[in-house]
Amino acid sequence: MKHGISLLPDCRPERRSATEYYADALAMARLADEAGMHYVKMTEHYLGNYGGYSPSPLTFLAAVAAQTSRIRLMTGCVLPAFHHPIQLAAHAAMVDVLSGGRLDVGFARAWLPYEFAALGVPMDTSRDRFEKTIDAVLRLWTEEKVTAECDYFSFTDATSLPAVVQEPHPPVWGAAIVSPQSFEWLARQGMGLLVSPSLLQRDLPHTKKLIRIYLDTFRETHRGTGREPRVAVSMPLYVAPSDARAREAAIPHLLEYNNVTIEAADAWTHVTSSSYPGYESMRDRLAAVTDESLRDGACAVVGSPESVVDTIRAVTEYLHADVWLWNIDYGGQPRETMESSLRLFVDEVLPHVSD
Amino acid sequence: MKHGISLLPDCRPERRSATEYYADALAMARLADEAGMHYVKMTEHYLGNYGGYSPSPLTFLAAVAAQTSRIRLMTGCVLPAFHHPIQLAAHAAMVDVLSGGRLDVGFARAWLPYEFAALGVPMDTSRDRFEKTIDAVLRLWTEEKVTAECDYFSFTDATSLPAVVQEPHPPVWGAAIVSPQSFEWLARQGMGLLVSPSLLQRDLPHTKKLIRIYLDTFRETHRGTGREPRVAVSMPLYVAPSDARAREAAIPHLLEYNNVTIEAADAWTHVTSSSYPGYESMRDRLAAVTDESLRDGACAVVGSPESVVDTIRAVTEYLHADVWLWNIDYGGQPRETMESSLRLFVDEVLPHVSD
Repeated sequence: MKHGISLLPDCRPERRSATEYYADALAMARLADEAGMHYVKMTEHYLGNYGGYSPSPLTFLAAVAAQTSRIRLMTGCVLPAFHHPIQLAAHAAMVDVLSGGRLDVGFARAWLPYEFAALGVPMDTSRDRFEKTIDAVLRLWTEEKVTAECDYFSFTDATSLPAVVQEPHPPVWGAAIVSPQSFEWLARQGMGLLVSPSLLQRDLPHTKKLIRIYLDTFRETHRGTGREPRVAVSMPLYVAPSDARAREAAIPHLLEYNNVTIEAADAWTHVTSSSYPGYESMRDRLAAVTDESLRDGACAVVGSPESVVDTIRAVTEYLHADVWLWNIDYGGQPRETMESSLRLFVDEVLPHVSD
Repeated sequence: MKHGISLLPDCRPERRSATEYYADALAMARLADEAGMHYVKMTEHYLGNYGGYSPSPLTFLAAVAAQTSRIRLMTGCVLPAFHHPIQLAAHAAMVDVLSGGRLDVGFARAWLPYEFAALGVPMDTSRDRFEKTIDAVLRLWTEEKVTAECDYFSFTDATSLPAVVQEPHPPVWGAAIVSPQSFEWLARQGMGLLVSPSLLQRDLPHTKKLIRIYLDTFRETHRGTGREPRVAVSMPLYVAPSDARAREAAIPHLLEYNNVTIEAADAWTHVTSSSYPGYESMRDRLAAVTDESLRDGACAVVGSPESVVDTIRAVTEYLHADVWLWNIDYGGQPRETMESSLRLFVDEVLPHVSD
């Protein structure tokens, strides 16, 4: 079992500046590196409080690369729909170079209508762009002269620079949330799976079924090739000396995280896309997360070190997770709570749940 | 007078890997920071040996930010034609945040036909994209809800995140080379001017005239506003204990730099663009640079510390330069020559030519 930290800034600028946020995020990345954790993951979002402080995870990871020596740097995710494959392949390669081959690249389709609108990308093209751009990026990393043509880009005999450090290329992952089609596609491509369950514990059996689709499809497709599926699960973490204190500290931040997500999902109020079935009702589903529902049980690992060890073991088995990416910055929380929770995790949990 | 280092990787991958190049470039940036130099500048280019190791100067500068504390970080340049203004404004703001407000943003129109072709951007739109994208980026940095519409992008009520740290925004510069129209436009916008003279000393009087156009236009446009023009000149530097040793070391690297530029300019062989008058003949002009022409005198500052002090003073006055950005990595040279030259510059030249 490998463990990392997963970052998605959901700060309200009036409460927490990007300057404070990034100073803290870099400090947490250094702490995770020193503790021997495996990954630091940063997301890509625009314009809104939901992740908008991080329009370029590769830029943040370049700064992390310069301040760390061992930890792997993961995008989680970059959004291919918003990039030309030549630029995306090349920027990622720069971070692979700057980090001495420590980059993992996670890709996602993007899901926020206001991002698509502002960047002038039709939402209904997102799956096709996602698949075609990833394909082109992989070719640019591994082939010497790449020619590609589709509705979104066209180039001839392109040699991507700089070359990636890792052979044949940085490990790749894809995020999937609700569509079985996405889980199958990632499996057929041989990519790792990134899953971020909703905060509602009642949704977890469905997530388990989707992971099963990924695992079955992967094993069928790649039988005998030596390739193995990889499942990385992101979930909020909070560790405190007792279960009660962990809950008291974590729940307000989880609610705030959910509120910021609801505000982002408001963009779906007057939008329907055949490419995003069910997203119109996302706002209502998120609204089912309440203080009470979180106290009754959430898809978040919150408790004393002993409880957290037990929960991680149970959920790992349930979800077939290989990698845990612990969300530690939810709710725009201050450095103090992130740091005390992460230190307790490193000192008293990690030794019991890592390889 | 302020001084910085200017980087443009022109390595042939078979001779110098990006891993070596970036380890050395980061080391030079740290050295420049420790020496109290004012700027480290990195360029944006794609696909070819001419700068292609650096498709994202902001990514490199994020790594420099994480390893330095005082030096300012300059793009030189980013190419607005290849970016959506929302992404460019936001990525730059991230580096402004990560560096604690140390970013300067230089913009250029881009000039390599193969970059435009690969990225699917018509060359004839480059000036219009350049001007409209810069305008949008400045508005995104300074206005709360930005609505913009033109042939290249369209968005409504966009609030750029993260906010820039510097008030009202990071200092902006624009590169101009041959077109008087560009020098005038930058002056009218109140932007700083970035000039990189060709290696041919015979071209320098023409560069002086163009700088004069910028200065005159700036002073006419902004009279009484307190705004002042700023002229930053990039030129190759080489300092050695004697003039002869400096020339012997520098000339082969200058020739190699020119050769890599010629190979890039070959892309103009079958291209004519009304937006780039005279570029068809760039290859021939570059071919006038020879070992002999460089020995007779080049737009490069090469010599003993004493000669270099004299040359800098003379050329500064001739070109009205406020800032010198010393190109130290030309010709894919190894760390040894970059470092010995830069150390000698810092120890024996800088005290005589800085503010």
